[in-house]
Amino acid sequence: MPNAAFQSRNRELLESLETSRQKKRFLVLDGPLGPIAQVEGVGEVIVLCSNNYLGLANHPEVVEAGIKGLEQYGAGTASVRFICGTFACHRDLEARIASFVGAPAALSYVSCWTANEAVFPTLAAPGDVVLSDALNHASIIDSCRLMNKQVVRAVYRHSDLDDLEAKLQHQADKACRWVVTDGVFSMEGDVALLPELIDICQRHDALLVVDDSHGIGALGKTGRGTPEYFDCLGQVDLLTGTLGKALGGAAGGYVAASADAIEVLEQRGRTSLFSNALPATVACSALKAIDILEREPERMARLASNTAALRAGFARLGFDCPDSPTAIIPIMIGDAADAIAKSNRLLELGVMVIGFGYPVVPLGEARLRVQVSAALEPEHIERCLDAFAQL
Amino acid sequence: MPNAAFQSRNRELLESLETSRQKKRFLVLDGPLGPIAQVEGVGEVIVLCSNNYLGLANHPEVVEAGIKGLEQYGAGTASVRFICGTFACHRDLEARIASFVGAPAALSYVSCWTANEAVFPTLAAPGDVVLSDALNHASIIDSCRLMNKQVVRAVYRHSDLDDLEAKLQHQADKACRWVVTDGVFSMEGDVALLPELIDICQRHDALLVVDDSHGIGALGKTGRGTPEYFDCLGQVDLLTGTLGKALGGAAGGYVAASADAIEVLEQRGRTSLFSNALPATVACSALKAIDILEREPERMARLASNTAALRAGFARLGFDCPDSPTAIIPIMIGDAADAIAKSNRLLELGVMVIGFGYPVVPLGEARLRVQVSAALEPEHIERCLDAFAQL
Repeated sequence: MPNAAFQSRNRELLESLETSRQKKRFLVLDGPLGPIAQVEGVGEVIVLCSNNYLGLANHPEVVEAGIKGLEQYGAGTASVRFICGTFACHRDLEARIASFVGAPAALSYVSCWTANEAVFPTLAAPGDVVLSDALNHASIIDSCRLMNKQVVRAVYRHSDLDDLEAKLQHQADKACRWVVTDGVFSMEGDVALLPELIDICQRHDALLVVDDSHGIGALGKTGRGTPEYFDCLGQVDLLTGTLGKALGGAAGGYVAASADAIEVLEQRGRTSLFSNALPATVACSALKAIDILEREPERMARLASNTAALRAGFARLGFDCPDSPTAIIPIMIGDAADAIAKSNRLLELGVMVIGFGYPVVPLGEARLRVQVSAALEPEHIERCLDAFAQL
Repeated sequence: MPNAAFQSRNRELLESLETSRQKKRFLVLDGPLGPIAQVEGVGEVIVLCSNNYLGLANHPEVVEAGIKGLEQYGAGTASVRFICGTFACHRDLEARIASFVGAPAALSYVSCWTANEAVFPTLAAPGDVVLSDALNHASIIDSCRLMNKQVVRAVYRHSDLDDLEAKLQHQADKACRWVVTDGVFSMEGDVALLPELIDICQRHDALLVVDDSHGIGALGKTGRGTPEYFDCLGQVDLLTGTLGKALGGAAGGYVAASADAIEVLEQRGRTSLFSNALPATVACSALKAIDILEREPERMARLASNTAALRAGFARLGFDCPDSPTAIIPIMIGDAADAIAKSNRLLELGVMVIGFGYPVVPLGEARLRVQVSAALEPEHIERCLDAFAQL
């Protein structure tokens, strides 16, 4: 039986989360995720909190491609990639991702978490330094934690180019200097200063890594992400991204980079050497999602116009929403309990939005995070704004 | 463009792997994984290297359950669990896993890699110590690397109870002492000394964590894994395991433990807070795989008899195979290049087996790792042994 110290500290933590009203409540969906969803015990809600930016999570062709994948490849690879877990669809997907994002090669993973975790432990070597934006995603932070201890880690202030450049100069003696940033920051919705970062990295001969999980299929005229938005396609050394948001949304991630870097990841990356391949059905769905995005770039325009409509509505209602070109709209509330209470009230009103407090965001900067989808129809947007008006 | 130091070190690594004949070759499967598979450029081969222990990776009902999952829930959750990524099938699967392995509660992850990575960083606290078997899986090692730095990490010699007990005594002042072991060790095929470990942990009031990825669906009369094999069901504090091997083989992992421990993981574990839910289709396939295993426990007997037949054949042919009750049969070769050459020769002969050398196994202990499946028919076993006879 678990020892008493362990039991009591679990209890204490859970009670303190309960008391401070920070305990996350797991709502259960009864059916697919679209602009609306069926939530057990709640009923039908409009979804303003998913990463389903393009509305492809329940697209009939994406579902059908997954079904065909199951029929063609079965349910399981039951293996890692280098043993017997590489199916033709993995190769097809990876070639497609590479060409879509403008990189020479790509490797898929079961999640972008494990894709990011492969990057620095595998590719950074003793004598290198990795400079990481202060607001980077948890998986980048953990990737850095897993590096060889002789790789220096340093954090630069969020999107602060002067701080970054000073740190690069300070680390001029390092074999390789790496700069890593989210393309779109998940809690703020702001975009990395990519042209400036590319310039700085070129001047300092540093390698630039961009996790574009919230950018791919959500930013850029044709959905190629942050590099396309800034007209910098092909200028980032290593791109990582997810298939679990805009591109079908099932799961999976990728690294896109030079052929050699990808081959080193294939040969040495722990998260692919020691963990299963991306399920074939997911690879097939993701491939179809890219097809649809290429065929229907108007989805990007719809995402942008939906975002603009919601932003304009929130402004009319007097909400404080920091500006950005992305589909993430943080509505600043301040107090965490207040943000969570408002999110509960919105759910009663039929709109699903999550409130985030400390430690996910800084103390006193609790917020509702709205995420927009191209799947939303004007009537959904109207109903959402009506609900926010009642807050 | 990537800097020159990075490019040249990638090139050097890849060339040295090539020269030393250690470069992994990625074979591409054209269709599903069964007792046989179609390998591009090779043709039909018998598979002796997958984790498809029960032959469920391409079972029609497992595939059909995945298709139904896609139809019912769509392709994507496009979210993490606590936002809008919990579907009814997740709850059903988790309840089923918990009851199957004899634990109060369970939580699923997109891989057992991320399940393991959740355990120690979330549940071990400053002032604890984690004692880890020297041959534990890479994901357990990385989980320990990600812990708070004030948690002491120590490694005990592989399955050495005296060494473990000495280390527990040495760490008697710690708040919680954790012992973590693989249930079945992936490269040796040997089984953890579970009854003794349970006894030691009880005497020292330590918490026992077992990763039973190669045990679940592969060991125990009804496939409940290492605890069932030793008649110790319900006596392990935290069990982790995979859905990506015997139980359908698509992907996914779980932690099964006390309700409070699971709730702490739900509330605080980084790999589920910041990474997608298990795809619904995979959850549905895995649930069906457990159904089939419960309905057809004879699959376990077939796995055991197939293993016995192959072991007996290898012994007749004079191969050196350390004894164990599991479906993993290491055939000791010694030299890594020799092991890889033999694996290539077997592929020409229509049998897919992988050779492993340093650093995956100790220097001079290179081996072919045979993994048995209940899906193998007597004629497959005969053809495999014929191929081995030609080595």
